[in-house]
Amino acid sequence: MTASEIRALFAVASRPEVVSLAGGMPFVQALNLDIMAELVQRLIASRGAQALQYGSGQGDVVLREQILDVMAPVGVTAHPDDIVVTTGSQMALDLVTRVFCDPGDVVLVEAPSYVGALGVFRAYQCDIEHVAMDEQGLVPEALSEAIARSRRSGRTVKMIYTIPSFHNPAGVTQGHERRQQILAIAQSAGILVLEDDPYGLLSFDGHIPRAIRADDPDGVIYLGSFSKTIASGLRVGWAVAPHGVREKLVLAAESAVLCPSNYSQLTVSAYLETQPWLEQIKVFRELYRERRDALLESLGSMMPAGTSWTVPTGGFYSWVTLPDGLDATAMLPRAIAALVAYVPGTGFYVDGQGRQNLRLSYCYPEPDRIREGVRRLAGVVEGELVLTNTFGTGTGLHEAPGSSFPAPHLK
Amino acid sequence: MTASEIRALFAVASRPEVVSLAGGMPFVQALNLDIMAELVQRLIASRGAQALQYGSGQGDVVLREQILDVMAPVGVTAHPDDIVVTTGSQMALDLVTRVFCDPGDVVLVEAPSYVGALGVFRAYQCDIEHVAMDEQGLVPEALSEAIARSRRSGRTVKMIYTIPSFHNPAGVTQGHERRQQILAIAQSAGILVLEDDPYGLLSFDGHIPRAIRADDPDGVIYLGSFSKTIASGLRVGWAVAPHGVREKLVLAAESAVLCPSNYSQLTVSAYLETQPWLEQIKVFRELYRERRDALLESLGSMMPAGTSWTVPTGGFYSWVTLPDGLDATAMLPRAIAALVAYVPGTGFYVDGQGRQNLRLSYCYPEPDRIREGVRRLAGVVEGELVLTNTFGTGTGLHEAPGSSFPAPHLK
Repeated sequence: MTASEIRALFAVASRPEVVSLAGGMPFVQALNLDIMAELVQRLIASRGAQALQYGSGQGDVVLREQILDVMAPVGVTAHPDDIVVTTGSQMALDLVTRVFCDPGDVVLVEAPSYVGALGVFRAYQCDIEHVAMDEQGLVPEALSEAIARSRRSGRTVKMIYTIPSFHNPAGVTQGHERRQQILAIAQSAGILVLEDDPYGLLSFDGHIPRAIRADDPDGVIYLGSFSKTIASGLRVGWAVAPHGVREKLVLAAESAVLCPSNYSQLTVSAYLETQPWLEQIKVFRELYRERRDALLESLGSMMPAGTSWTVPTGGFYSWVTLPDGLDATAMLPRAIAALVAYVPGTGFYVDGQGRQNLRLSYCYPEPDRIREGVRRLAGVVEGELVLTNTFGTGTGLHEAPGSSFPAPHLK
Repeated sequence: MTASEIRALFAVASRPEVVSLAGGMPFVQALNLDIMAELVQRLIASRGAQALQYGSGQGDVVLREQILDVMAPVGVTAHPDDIVVTTGSQMALDLVTRVFCDPGDVVLVEAPSYVGALGVFRAYQCDIEHVAMDEQGLVPEALSEAIARSRRSGRTVKMIYTIPSFHNPAGVTQGHERRQQILAIAQSAGILVLEDDPYGLLSFDGHIPRAIRADDPDGVIYLGSFSKTIASGLRVGWAVAPHGVREKLVLAAESAVLCPSNYSQLTVSAYLETQPWLEQIKVFRELYRERRDALLESLGSMMPAGTSWTVPTGGFYSWVTLPDGLDATAMLPRAIAALVAYVPGTGFYVDGQGRQNLRLSYCYPEPDRIREGVRRLAGVVEGELVLTNTFGTGTGLHEAPGSSFPAPHLK
């Protein structure tokens, strides 16, 4: 699925009568917009000459210090000099790839992986290799094999790109031991880890996973974002880079956008300084947990046998596997006609995997809309099963050929 | 001069006791900050759910329509679909280069040229060739010669990058006939023109130059910016692309930053909708004209014989040529010690030209500070002349070897 197809999809899915379980939009309405309005009013009235002016290419120094506090719960410690503020963490992905990767370099990614990262790696002509996941995310043995295989074929493996917490789109999370295993493999192979962590603080069970970067400041680049913890429209993300790399990232950032927006940065900075931001994250967590529950309950009560899905403990997404013989891409037009939207699984792979999969997002619609969306989706899947004459065969996912998702973590 | 040297320079020059004629910061304090504060307060209170949310990768559609009005004075007409909103026009420079240029492709640029553009072309490993300027900017004969020379050597010329109005750093402007000549050369050679126009509306004499793009929608990519007409800290710029190119730029933009900031875009949109933006541009024009006058008068009355400079009719900059034998880069530490800062000319070339030149910006300091800055600078230049034993020889610029600036346009 190309970016333009995704755009077309979003255009249709944004019609109000469609229940969209497709987009990954945070529910920014949960912010107190009147308080936000007052905050920006005070910012511009008191510090407008700075907020409306060019700033440093690396980002505002006060904000970089505050970012250290925001990363404390995931265990990342750093010096403010090692933080580069970007126009969303998407730009950090772009800069890191620009600095590290030459055409033909191998980047190892999860199977499936974030579509925006795949787009960046493709834009820089990297050789993208998917590595299998299980209920705890990236599988260490599969990672070792992929490194060995790439090297046997004479290629250079430049990065391991991973979303360890509340994965997009897979909805799974690496446990602490799993992270240690992955890091040990990367260290022993001398390969950089690019750790993308936009959802880390959005845990539903009170346990915030420790970042991989917390255990290796030199071998891991950590990407953070305010898009899901404050507001995506501000476009403020950051990279924490090993000290020797930081200067190159800053130069690349200056070449790309001159400097990040002071207007957005100082808004975030004022918000962190004056508002109970951790309390607000708790509000977001409760909200998303309630929606996750609505999704899982309705999937459990309404989806036909043979359908399975992951059980996220944080973040925005569950990854669904359709009954054997069904194709999520082919089914999408019928789903849209039934007024429910999702993202087909193939968009999260570069190698044609994922036809039996789809991503459901529970972050944006209210719980009742989620239930209605799943009801519509279940009807579409049932219709597909009748059409393909496989209804009632109950072959299920476990034997699905080519699936990179083993069974245990699936509901 | 590398980006890090420029950063070091700016760090020193930002000390309050230094008169900085170095930076190109717009004087955003000329906005009514209380009105801006009210505007953003209303925006977030009434449309916060949109302003704080992800948006389209191409940019907000209402803003793209408003951008058409903003370009009307320079004669650019287009469809909103052909506009791509970017994180400042620096990002548009980056995207255009990313889409069009392969390593080794020739990009023709003015001598001197904008340092941020040179950085982008260098980052994409373009072969940068400077083309001589005169009092009307890019010299058509030199352009033809540069194209022929590049092609004779077997290289592909991908773009002609030009700042036709109120050039940064040269302070000169192409007349209408000159623009027609340049366009004809580009068309006949089949080479894309990349027209960078951040200053076009900031004319001091009532004449707003017609954009090159106004006469060729297919062969010219036009870059615009709100950094100098509203506020640089918002980081909102745009590209107007030929229809066949636009889709590629949008895909590159999505890969680079996912989408531009709705927060910044909707602020610009609300400002354009509710504020007398053309009146505010007149305020900026008057302010910068007064500062330009302060600069030119004090240069005329205080600089030693043999110094010359361009007379800008708009924009932010004048380009100074020092007396023979003086070196603006070597002189900079002494200027900083005398509490005045400028940007040495060598930063605006990739080939070592510009040692005798420096760029003076009059956009930010108040007129009295500009006069004081020139007084200090004149003292430094005089001291240099004594040191180099050339004081009183009066050889001047006209015979300066290797200068790409002929005499007529210089004061």
